[in-house]
Amino acid sequence: MSKKAAVIMGSDSDLPVMQEAIDKLKHFGIPVEVRIISAHRTPAAAEQFATHAAENGFGVIIAGAGKAAHLGGVLAAYTTLPVIGVPIKTSMMGGLDSLLSIVQMPSGIPVATVGVNGAANAGILAAQMLAIGDAELKAKLADFKEDMAKAVAAKDEKVRAQFEQ
Amino acid sequence: MSKKAAVIMGSDSDLPVMQEAIDKLKHFGIPVEVRIISAHRTPAAAEQFATHAAENGFGVIIAGAGKAAHLGGVLAAYTTLPVIGVPIKTSMMGGLDSLLSIVQMPSGIPVATVGVNGAANAGILAAQMLAIGDAELKAKLADFKEDMAKAVAAKDEKVRAQFEQ
Amino acid sequence: MSKKAAVIMGSDSDLPVMQEAIDKLKHFGIPVEVRIISAHRTPAAAEQFATHAAENGFGVIIAGAGKAAHLGGVLAAYTTLPVIGVPIKTSMMGGLDSLLSIVQMPSGIPVATVGVNGAANAGILAAQMLAIGDAELKAKLADFKEDMAKAVAAKDEKVRAQFEQ
Amino acid sequence: MSKKAAVIMGSDSDLPVMQEAIDKLKHFGIPVEVRIISAHRTPAAAEQFATHAAENGFGVIIAGAGKAAHLGGVLAAYTTLPVIGVPIKTSMMGGLDSLLSIVQMPSGIPVATVGVNGAANAGILAAQMLAIGDAELKAKLADFKEDMAKAVAAKDEKVRAQFEQ
Amino acid sequence: MSKKAAVIMGSDSDLPVMQEAIDKLKHFGIPVEVRIISAHRTPAAAEQFATHAAENGFGVIIAGAGKAAHLGGVLAAYTTLPVIGVPIKTSMMGGLDSLLSIVQMPSGIPVATVGVNGAANAGILAAQMLAIGDAELKAKLADFKEDMAKAVAAKDEKVRAQFEQ
Amino acid sequence: MSKKAAVIMGSDSDLPVMQEAIDKLKHFGIPVEVRIISAHRTPAAAEQFATHAAENGFGVIIAGAGKAAHLGGVLAAYTTLPVIGVPIKTSMMGGLDSLLSIVQMPSGIPVATVGVNGAANAGILAAQMLAIGDAELKAKLADFKEDMAKAVAAKDEKVRAQFEQ
Amino acid sequence: MSKKAAVIMGSDSDLPVMQEAIDKLKHFGIPVEVRIISAHRTPAAAEQFATHAAENGFGVIIAGAGKAAHLGGVLAAYTTLPVIGVPIKTSMMGGLDSLLSIVQMPSGIPVATVGVNGAANAGILAAQMLAIGDAELKAKLADFKEDMAKAVAAKDEKVRAQFEQ
Amino acid sequence: MSKKAAVIMGSDSDLPVMQEAIDKLKHFGIPVEVRIISAHRTPAAAEQFATHAAENGFGVIIAGAGKAAHLGGVLAAYTTLPVIGVPIKTSMMGGLDSLLSIVQMPSGIPVATVGVNGAANAGILAAQMLAIGDAELKAKLADFKEDMAKAVAAKDEKVRAQFEQ
Repeated sequence: MSKKAAVIMGSDSDLPVMQEAIDKLKHFGIPVEVRIISAHRTPAAAEQFATHAAENGFGVIIAGAGKAAHLGGVLAAYTTLPVIGVPIKTSMMGGLDSLLSIVQMPSGIPVATVGVNGAANAGILAAQMLAIGDAELKAKLADFKEDMAKAVAAKDEKVRAQFEQ
Repeated sequence: MSKKAAVIMGSDSDLPVMQEAIDKLKHFGIPVEVRIISAHRTPAAAEQFATHAAENGFGVIIAGAGKAAHLGGVLAAYTTLPVIGVPIKTSMMGGLDSLLSIVQMPSGIPVATVGVNGAANAGILAAQMLAIGDAELKAKLADFKEDMAKAVAAKDEKVRAQFEQ
Repeated sequence: MSKKAAVIMGSDSDLPVMQEAIDKLKHFGIPVEVRIISAHRTPAAAEQFATHAAENGFGVIIAGAGKAAHLGGVLAAYTTLPVIGVPIKTSMMGGLDSLLSIVQMPSGIPVATVGVNGAANAGILAAQMLAIGDAELKAKLADFKEDMAKAVAAKDEKVRAQFEQ
Repeated sequence: MSKKAAVIMGSDSDLPVMQEAIDKLKHFGIPVEVRIISAHRTPAAAEQFATHAAENGFGVIIAGAGKAAHLGGVLAAYTTLPVIGVPIKTSMMGGLDSLLSIVQMPSGIPVATVGVNGAANAGILAAQMLAIGDAELKAKLADFKEDMAKAVAAKDEKVRAQFEQ
Repeated sequence: MSKKAAVIMGSDSDLPVMQEAIDKLKHFGIPVEVRIISAHRTPAAAEQFATHAAENGFGVIIAGAGKAAHLGGVLAAYTTLPVIGVPIKTSMMGGLDSLLSIVQMPSGIPVATVGVNGAANAGILAAQMLAIGDAELKAKLADFKEDMAKAVAAKDEKVRAQFEQ
Repeated sequence: MSKKAAVIMGSDSDLPVMQEAIDKLKHFGIPVEVRIISAHRTPAAAEQFATHAAENGFGVIIAGAGKAAHLGGVLAAYTTLPVIGVPIKTSMMGGLDSLLSIVQMPSGIPVATVGVNGAANAGILAAQMLAIGDAELKAKLADFKEDMAKAVAAKDEKVRAQFEQ
Repeated sequence: MSKKAAVIMGSDSDLPVMQEAIDKLKHFGIPVEVRIISAHRTPAAAEQFATHAAENGFGVIIAGAGKAAHLGGVLAAYTTLPVIGVPIKTSMMGGLDSLLSIVQMPSGIPVATVGVNGAANAGILAAQMLAIGDAELKAKLADFKEDMAKAVAAKDEKVRAQFEQ
Repeated sequence: MSKKAAVIMGSDSDLPVMQEAIDKLKHFGIPVEVRIISAHRTPAAAEQFATHAAENGFGVIIAGAGKAAHLGGVLAAYTTLPVIGVPIKTSMMGGLDSLLSIVQMPSGIPVATVGVNGAANAGILAAQMLAIGDAELKAKLADFKEDMAKAVAAKDEKVRAQFEQ
């Protein structure tokens, strides 16, 4: 069975955005644990979680945070698991603060960053990482890709018909 | 033995930046292939490479590109392997064009983005992904983390002494 | 008769914006085909369309996309027809991500970029390109320009009267 | 024979950048006229040129300007020929002022914008426009595209060999 | 009697914003004419107006425009009267496109720029310019300044009382 | 007893934002005075207040202002008390104008800047400054920190339960 | 004889930039006084200067400052003379901090802003303001405009010849 | 005697910038300790330092960091002492990444932010905080302010003479 994925966010107000990551992980049959951990308000919980994540069966960590979004970096400081950062949209240039706070990590401690509010992509990326050595999961990802292509093709069909002259 | 990592860049002028990814991958003993493939000038090569990357033994792809940096997205369109994008620094707001072109991928096709010119982090991130099911590689990553900590501690020691009053 | 124009968008959610391009093309009597093709979800369709666009009677391609907007660049990679890119507005700085992803193309593969959500201008620009060797279309463009001037002059008249002292 | 292309710039200090457009046009055998016309310092010359450009045998106009770059828009106001705008790099966010001043044209008067300092792409785009009804020019563009692909492939070959393990 | 002020805008959709400039000018007893003139759609009207503005009794011109906002610069090209530019708010970074298109004028042709949607300030600034040689107008400006100070002081009084402990 | 804190804003329209600073200060039992003082409309009041703030029992000044937000800097020019600046959110890139106008102070005159609309943090920061020599206040801050941690932990508990599989 | 113009800057390091304003003012025969006054370090001098500027024979004030550039706004707070602000270039996005700090003035207190490092334009704008009621100065401005046009026309002539085919 | 100030930076490459903070603190006679602690590479040292800073005699902490600059926030998570953040200049829009990563802290955990590379101001701000209950230090700050004013006045004198007509 696949390793677990963690979906961690700094505040429960981020849950509606992060739900998409949870949904994608469940779609791929990946066991997921959801946590509210704040890099700044509960730093001990962040350290605790990240330090023991690998031995607790996690293969990847998804961290969603906004503004001066340190959560992903703080978790990455305490683990060698890949950490995926989801910048939460803010009113500061559409979330540029969140994005830069997450993606511009100093050399040595990467955070794999997806787009602003890109929690669905974080879930898919986590699945891609876990699928590196998991043929069954890789097959699910291929199906998912094919389904997306079919959905676009169906819309294409419909629009072409609509504008046929 | 670990799966291979690909380091792909759109132009050989990006090689000095991307060399850091190659170096990190080699440091961790990961077999690496280096390619010059342009999403716009050799799109067939991009399609070809990405379509067959998994069956050719690659576990992860690192793509470095600048300006309207489509390389990572184009590769990700043809594979379910995780693709890591390295935005190359430009004179447009320090590479914000490269960064946004890579990180803001639409839902369904993630690119794991690192900081501008963050090729070293791309290499480490690739190692973290490949280490999910590879205890030996995980141990190397732990050593690497420890060595970084020691290097900082040594500098701390030196600076403290220098400013001792 | 004029060559055809293609209006392609990555998602049908972009149709309300892109409709303005379709309307302008129809206004000028240019045959138009509308397609939903995603650079990332249906890359084969993008390749297929662009590779054969010229022989299929198209003279110009309009591509609308948002966020990491690769559609225009991907189409341009496979054709020598002029490709017009329409950056779709996003919440990331009003669509700066879309704009930079489209306009900052590397040397060799241009995309003729209009303003954010500037689909109407994309339609007019396509007409201007097709009119280079088409006197009738050129006359329609001149009429259009004159009508715009008259509409502004009429508003000027009205406002002057309103504020007359 | 192909229609002429005009390469216009607001100041002769922009010539080193705009030379790339001239070079590309000459590469494709397109007759080119080069002018220094300022939207603000010689507005009458701008009006004069644009008003009579079509009847004087021009098929497309390339306008390079920096900062509050009004040249492209001012020329487009007086002609129905397609106008290509080249934003010149400045120290204001790498030329974002030039880019936005050119690309964000109001509805009705498009300027086909290329990337900052993208004069080479402006030349290619002009050729693509003129090639719509010109099979010979279209063939030259196809050759150019093929040559670019070959150049990248050669570099790819070289780099692959260099990193062969 | 004071010279006239012109309030010009590219579209009547800008009138609600520009009304504040008109109101301020009327408050100071300055004769005002309001015009809809587009730099791009009615360039001849722009040239006509600006060329003859001084001889027609205008002392200052206020120009409001949005996006690639060329109106102020185009008017300034044809007159030596001071031109005040009002950048209209857009969805592109809150009007940064309008602001940069207006304020970053090349050397030789200044446009006196106020803040985004700062039409009230444009009216006051016009009054300040006209007051340079007009003691009566200067007195009105001093009164206006005093009234503003009193209004703030009154609010200060009220808030202090409200929070008194 | 603790020194007083001043909460000053340029306009009463900023009160809803600045109320959070007042609330935090009251939570910590710090005497607070609230003022409406404009750097530009009532500069004499600003000078007056800041010049005498220390002798009037203030230990720290919080200044909230938006757009070209000079209030904090102007107050800091007349006092050696620490001045905390709160950038008020605007429609210009989410308040980047306010933020840069406050934080980018020239050498010699610092303003301690918090995030856009970060009035609550301004209140807490003021308390931290006043607590440097005040053990009782320091204890309150420790309690506050603990309460925040508990609140996050409670939410964590709830979310974990909700997603337990 | 014309009223005087003041050229004020916050630091003598700004003199090389501001010299262009002085040069332009002298070119037009406008008496100029140059001052180093800091809004933050010598606020009393700023207040003193601005309060008495009108009665001391000044007709307009030019203020150059960088970063959190409050100088123009602080001077404008104490006078009804028009104040022209010159944002000095910085390393923060090419001077966007200076620009926004100057141009985004709150309603009631305008600062007439020119482009980043646009001191020459500030000098010309000051002349335009002083020329409102001064026919001789107006004539000099017309000559200046004509000379600029001739200089551009001469360069145009030269470039046309150079590229003649 | 005054409490101590800590000057902490993530890398010794930041020392040339942070030296200015050290110099200012020494100028005011404040005991200072200098440390190299990385939020991401030596997170345990960060926790250790911050947790015990108050009991170890520190009154204020200055933290300098660049890019995704988490150091200030991480330290603030573990202490109730005021933490001053110095954003280090980067090539990403002049350090906007550092600035936003530091200043946009979530509610509850403030970091007192100064301008990019504003280490001197960080030192002065630290002195202002420590001076709240320290009359001697307050006097030194007043002297410092007076000296700055005198230095500006001297330059003013010199420049006035230089431009005297």
